[in-house]
Amino acid sequence: MTITDPTTTTTSALDAARAELRGRLLADGVLIDLGSPGLYGRTGVFERVYTAVDAAAVRSQADLDAEVLRFPPVEPLAAFERTDYIASFPDLAASISGFTGDDRTHRALLAARERGERWETFLEPADLMLTPAVCHPVYGLIGDTVPEGGRAFDIVGDSFRREPSLDPMRLQAFHMHEFVHVGTPESAKAHRDGRIPGMRALLESFGLAIDVVPANDPFFGRVGQILARNQVEQSLKYEFVSPVYGPDHDPTAISSANLHEDHFGTAFGLRTADGEVAHSACLAFGLERITIALFAAHGTDPDRWTSDVRAALAL
Amino acid sequence: MTITDPTTTTTSALDAARAELRGRLLADGVLIDLGSPGLYGRTGVFERVYTAVDAAAVRSQADLDAEVLRFPPVEPLAAFERTDYIASFPDLAASISGFTGDDRTHRALLAARERGERWETFLEPADLMLTPAVCHPVYGLIGDTVPEGGRAFDIVGDSFRREPSLDPMRLQAFHMHEFVHVGTPESAKAHRDGRIPGMRALLESFGLAIDVVPANDPFFGRVGQILARNQVEQSLKYEFVSPVYGPDHDPTAISSANLHEDHFGTAFGLRTADGEVAHSACLAFGLERITIALFAAHGTDPDRWTSDVRAALAL
Repeated sequence: MTITDPTTTTTSALDAARAELRGRLLADGVLIDLGSPGLYGRTGVFERVYTAVDAAAVRSQADLDAEVLRFPPVEPLAAFERTDYIASFPDLAASISGFTGDDRTHRALLAARERGERWETFLEPADLMLTPAVCHPVYGLIGDTVPEGGRAFDIVGDSFRREPSLDPMRLQAFHMHEFVHVGTPESAKAHRDGRIPGMRALLESFGLAIDVVPANDPFFGRVGQILARNQVEQSLKYEFVSPVYGPDHDPTAISSANLHEDHFGTAFGLRTADGEVAHSACLAFGLERITIALFAAHGTDPDRWTSDVRAALAL
Repeated sequence: MTITDPTTTTTSALDAARAELRGRLLADGVLIDLGSPGLYGRTGVFERVYTAVDAAAVRSQADLDAEVLRFPPVEPLAAFERTDYIASFPDLAASISGFTGDDRTHRALLAARERGERWETFLEPADLMLTPAVCHPVYGLIGDTVPEGGRAFDIVGDSFRREPSLDPMRLQAFHMHEFVHVGTPESAKAHRDGRIPGMRALLESFGLAIDVVPANDPFFGRVGQILARNQVEQSLKYEFVSPVYGPDHDPTAISSANLHEDHFGTAFGLRTADGEVAHSACLAFGLERITIALFAAHGTDPDRWTSDVRAALAL
């Protein structure tokens, strides 16, 4: 999920609006500063709204009868490699290193640390990556062939993207609840397009102003600019955006609906019942972004939100 | 949490028992192999039991009226450093690296990858660590002084420890639900000791055979052996162990009750109302370990568990 670039306003005015919201969330005890931009502790009031948002998202997709899958926040390097993420989003990727040395190497590490030097150089890559997109692990688990009618998955998990920011809408560690369909080109497109109106209605029922707009992922570098343009031209990604920072600033994405076409089907060797390369699509609820958008729109005390909003969230 | 060393049986018999349970959990669709030892996908039936275990743990500590805090799976290096974890458990630690280069460096990374070389060397330490213990972040957030009566925290989050294993009771990424008290030496000890009988009764109500035994953390190296011995002699750590692999093998820890004495109070500069160094204690429910112990004890279909067990879990 990307925040649309702030082209209509000066950066400093937008930064001020972001700082104001961040300050309010911290002062009112919704989030806790952990000392690294985009990493927060979450209090009881945050968890209460977050849990309600997640439950409402699940209820809204209950007719899918999707298979439930949950994944840890890390994935094996081999799985990460199959997605080609490091080619498209190197700046967002995060690899994990561990210590494999003996007592003597450990003493050398501690001595370096004592001298104020970086000791991470004593660690070795551990063949693990932080998972950047919660639907990544699923494609490697499907097997070669998806049955007629395709398969639907209900996935929620940790995403990590290395983009430190003081914008409370841009976290380094966050959760997406994704509803993935793998099937034919037609069924994938139907999954994506057919569910956009319902997703929009759900988010609007939370008292949020919503627009659905074509968007692109933040591909890296000059080649990435071409990929991003293609993604918009082919209408592969739609974002549900909300004017979190008011009418003077571009709205912020809080959810998305994505058509991957054969991207994952090709990468993971997935076929449909009739032998064609499988297509996939995904509805992604940005749980923290929706939650924070609610606090921004309605204030930091959910007990004072309107009865309509509380009813929609079963709060 | 540590598995007690298997001293009473040969390693190969225990390994066979572990492989049998792992195979059964995979074959019956409870867990999904992600291709890295100790990392699993979790299916709907796992989530159903896991959620019930967590809810039961929360109900059992409701009288604490604890402050709810949730944390991301990563923590800033500065916070990690204050716990001295890298001195005691270097082999379990996991640091995070990110890519900070430009287009040209990215092309060099991709070229190295194309040649089959490791490309992680193009990444730089990102001043972040995977959180090894979910209560770590809380101590930095308390401020200088805890009020009279102390403070209680309800924390659940991701733990990561770099110890790949084919034992399904030993995951690399797992969750602990911890109930932490920070206060005086007396109140910390009362929190720990006073709640052990109730925790034991709760776990026994799940139909698990439970013993409560003195234990130690897996401190690293030769110095660590001394620390581990001290920990046992001073009765700082108790584990709730269950014979997951049958009576012929040592039981496995599924929860723990820990007295930190002034360890975190000193490291984080915490004082009680009367100016003494604060003490802390923690009850830790190992959510995945309890869940898997349930599948091991009662089979992989919760609908066939006894009505007593299902009632205790509100399943």
